Amino acid sequence: MLASAALGEFAALLGAERVFTDPDTLALYASDETPRVCRPEAVLFPVSHEQVAGIVAIANVHRLPLTARAAGSGNVGGALPAPGSVVVSFECMRRIVEFDPDDRLVVVEPGVVTDDIDALAATAGLMYAPDPGSGAYCRIGGNLAMNAAGPRCVKYGATRDHVLGLRAVLGDGREIRSGSRTSKYATGYDLTRLLVGSEGTLAFITEATLKLVPAPQTVATLRVCYAGNQAACDAVLRVMRQPVVPCALEFMDRRSIDAIRDYGGAEGLPSGTEAVLMVEADGDTDDVPRFIAALERALRGDGLLEIQSGFSAADIKRLWTARKSLSHAVKKIAPLKINEDVVVPVSRLAELVDAIDALGREHGVPLVSFGHAGNGNLHVNLMVHADDAEEMGRARACRRALVETVLRLGGSLSGEHGIGSEKRSFVSLELEPDTLDLMRRLKMLFDPLGILNPGKKLPD
Amino acid sequence: MLASAALGEFAALLGAERVFTDPDTLALYASDETPRVCRPEAVLFPVSHEQVAGIVAIANVHRLPLTARAAGSGNVGGALPAPGSVVVSFECMRRIVEFDPDDRLVVVEPGVVTDDIDALAATAGLMYAPDPGSGAYCRIGGNLAMNAAGPRCVKYGATRDHVLGLRAVLGDGREIRSGSRTSKYATGYDLTRLLVGSEGTLAFITEATLKLVPAPQTVATLRVCYAGNQAACDAVLRVMRQPVVPCALEFMDRRSIDAIRDYGGAEGLPSGTEAVLMVEADGDTDDVPRFIAALERALRGDGLLEIQSGFSAADIKRLWTARKSLSHAVKKIAPLKINEDVVVPVSRLAELVDAIDALGREHGVPLVSFGHAGNGNLHVNLMVHADDAEEMGRARACRRALVETVLRLGGSLSGEHGIGSEKRSFVSLELEPDTLDLMRRLKMLFDPLGILNPGKKLPD
Repeated sequence: MLASAALGEFAALLGAERVFTDPDTLALYASDETPRVCRPEAVLFPVSHEQVAGIVAIANVHRLPLTARAAGSGNVGGALPAPGSVVVSFECMRRIVEFDPDDRLVVVEPGVVTDDIDALAATAGLMYAPDPGSGAYCRIGGNLAMNAAGPRCVKYGATRDHVLGLRAVLGDGREIRSGSRTSKYATGYDLTRLLVGSEGTLAFITEATLKLVPAPQTVATLRVCYAGNQAACDAVLRVMRQPVVPCALEFMDRRSIDAIRDYGGAEGLPSGTEAVLMVEADGDTDDVPRFIAALERALRGDGLLEIQSGFSAADIKRLWTARKSLSHAVKKIAPLKINEDVVVPVSRLAELVDAIDALGREHGVPLVSFGHAGNGNLHVNLMVHADDAEEMGRARACRRALVETVLRLGGSLSGEHGIGSEKRSFVSLELEPDTLDLMRRLKMLFDPLGILNPGKKLPD
Repeated sequence: MLASAALGEFAALLGAERVFTDPDTLALYASDETPRVCRPEAVLFPVSHEQVAGIVAIANVHRLPLTARAAGSGNVGGALPAPGSVVVSFECMRRIVEFDPDDRLVVVEPGVVTDDIDALAATAGLMYAPDPGSGAYCRIGGNLAMNAAGPRCVKYGATRDHVLGLRAVLGDGREIRSGSRTSKYATGYDLTRLLVGSEGTLAFITEATLKLVPAPQTVATLRVCYAGNQAACDAVLRVMRQPVVPCALEFMDRRSIDAIRDYGGAEGLPSGTEAVLMVEADGDTDDVPRFIAALERALRGDGLLEIQSGFSAADIKRLWTARKSLSHAVKKIAPLKINEDVVVPVSRLAELVDAIDALGREHGVPLVSFGHAGNGNLHVNLMVHADDAEEMGRARACRRALVETVLRLGGSLSGEHGIGSEKRSFVSLELEPDTLDLMRRLKMLFDPLGILNPGKKLPD
């Protein structure tokens, strides 16, 4: 139960209109995209770095855990309130502090919507490269917390690769500033990249200096249909072996295609299609046709059924139709989607896809897999019914077997979604005890009282 | 004085033939490229991770400081032995543990020569992108310690951007493993990038998994002569505003050109040349001429005297002649070169170059500046006589004024050389007290007894 003294202090700091304790607001902020729910004690909406620092200072006095939240669009329970915690929403910190096209950087607060950053960059012929699927509504603070990525990551890298510097609040309320406005830096320890992906457990980020890159003039698309998963995976490896790096290399497995067919979204796919790659190339208008031709050469091989290319907006949209219907289509299989965001070296992708098929059969759980194949990063979706305890038990066993398979293949638990509260129990399967111990001590150093996002990232 | 017990334990661990205490060896390992000298107590040559871990464990028992050293080619005293310390040379740990072209990675020990990694990558059409000027003899362990970079950094990023994972020994002798073999990773805290650039003060790296990129087919070169520093700096900004990113954008200021002229290396430069840019573009053979044309357009402007392009190996070599003579040429100005490796946002480069001119006049110290202008990273060389105490005093004042100027322009103390022992006293001018305090506590966490590279990176 939240001390009324703390509430009074928060109200004095933020103004009463930025401190919410009504049941509707608490319910709205009780979960992210995962099914688990935990009602927070209050929801705070700071508008400045100083207010965030003040919140953390008050929380220290009252030993009050804080749960950071940007858009709440994550799917590993990263913004799931810890029991007894107060949610700090960054939604009202959405200022563009500075936009400097000459130095190719933008300074933003954590509540800015990701796509808005890219749109602003575009006004100067630049691009903010990381493009999570939720870009239209997720906020950069969540992207920074999770080291979010998206299709373009195969060419441009993830969020961590696009951050020059940070301003943040430590667990004791103190401010740190890391990094630089420069494109090279060899002065202090690299706290910037340490904080990116730390899921709000080491510090609350209040300002980020992001790197922008020249925007490509044009993008073109290939939709490539194969007779089987393995044929598609072999093509992925051929693409990643040649020098033209695509700006998207997305895979849909047989189960995904089945779901799209059942949903009525597969018209235009040749019969016999059991796997599809969506491949894109970007660059100067003069170059892209040649890039596409090089990618086509690499994509041709055993099991190829059809390649269609799209250079106009209308054609590109048509080619993406089947892929875009996928998230609706899978919902017809079962109401609950447990999304495992695993990653393996790209050379092991074919083995992973094979193993997923076997695991689905063995555990009797429909597994629908798609994702960023050029990075070896698949979203393996376990389609289940939350009220079927027996099925949920099989899904748990299947998830664990999947994680063990991924680690055996030299992969990692998460490519871009992070660990949150949902995957914590698996972390000690991947990290060695001394490494995990060091990470726990790092957490203690940054946040001695365990105020910041308890119950996330590291196992208990 | 080194306890003979410790020496005996080192000999038992490594074999007596890997423990050196003779005066010649101690003298050889008493310095790096900086003038300062400090004789170590012994020099050890481990050949494996286990031996490094064993050395650190023994050092813990005897509270013995260890100085890490790769090639000793650094120029900030990063490998300068701390008083009473034992040097751990990584020269004999030079195995290529694994080379995996499909996953575009190579696993190396810290003693591998940097250019050898690139040469190995080239056998599979790949490239290790970071290209420090010392690449032919520096070793990857030193590059990792300093976050080394080179001309290609303007397009490809620095060492930190090319490391997927590390194996390392903490200050207490324990092993950690960070990162992954995958091109995306969102599982643990990012210890990998924290260790890169930490100058051996947090852990000794014993193995690194490095990212490789597709090798460009061709490189072409432009040598561009301007009538003044400002004209060249304006051109740099124009280049960095347009979308074709060069793979080198190197600047030489008026003082550099004077030195080259005095040395007799300026034949071929048009009269009136006061600044030169060396610009390169890489890519497919079909594309490079168009890239060069785009760069030429950006490079044209007020004060341009001449652009020469080179596409053949012979022409490229000829164009680089003046630049390659520079390091010999500056030695004629004065015997001691104090190399300040400062970096500013590229939009502030012109102001920096102006300020350097003024500082040189004001303090009566010849300042020769050149470097990686596309990153705003200049090597400002103070040319002095070590035995002239009055001049050395002026040089100290000039250095400090330079650092203050760089920080006022939003820059940083070091772009690629690191801090070492030489620049420690400036660090607190750049980092805020709470941020520096956190870094000090990080050091304590990783290395509680202060065994690893004491006297480096952070101020006392």
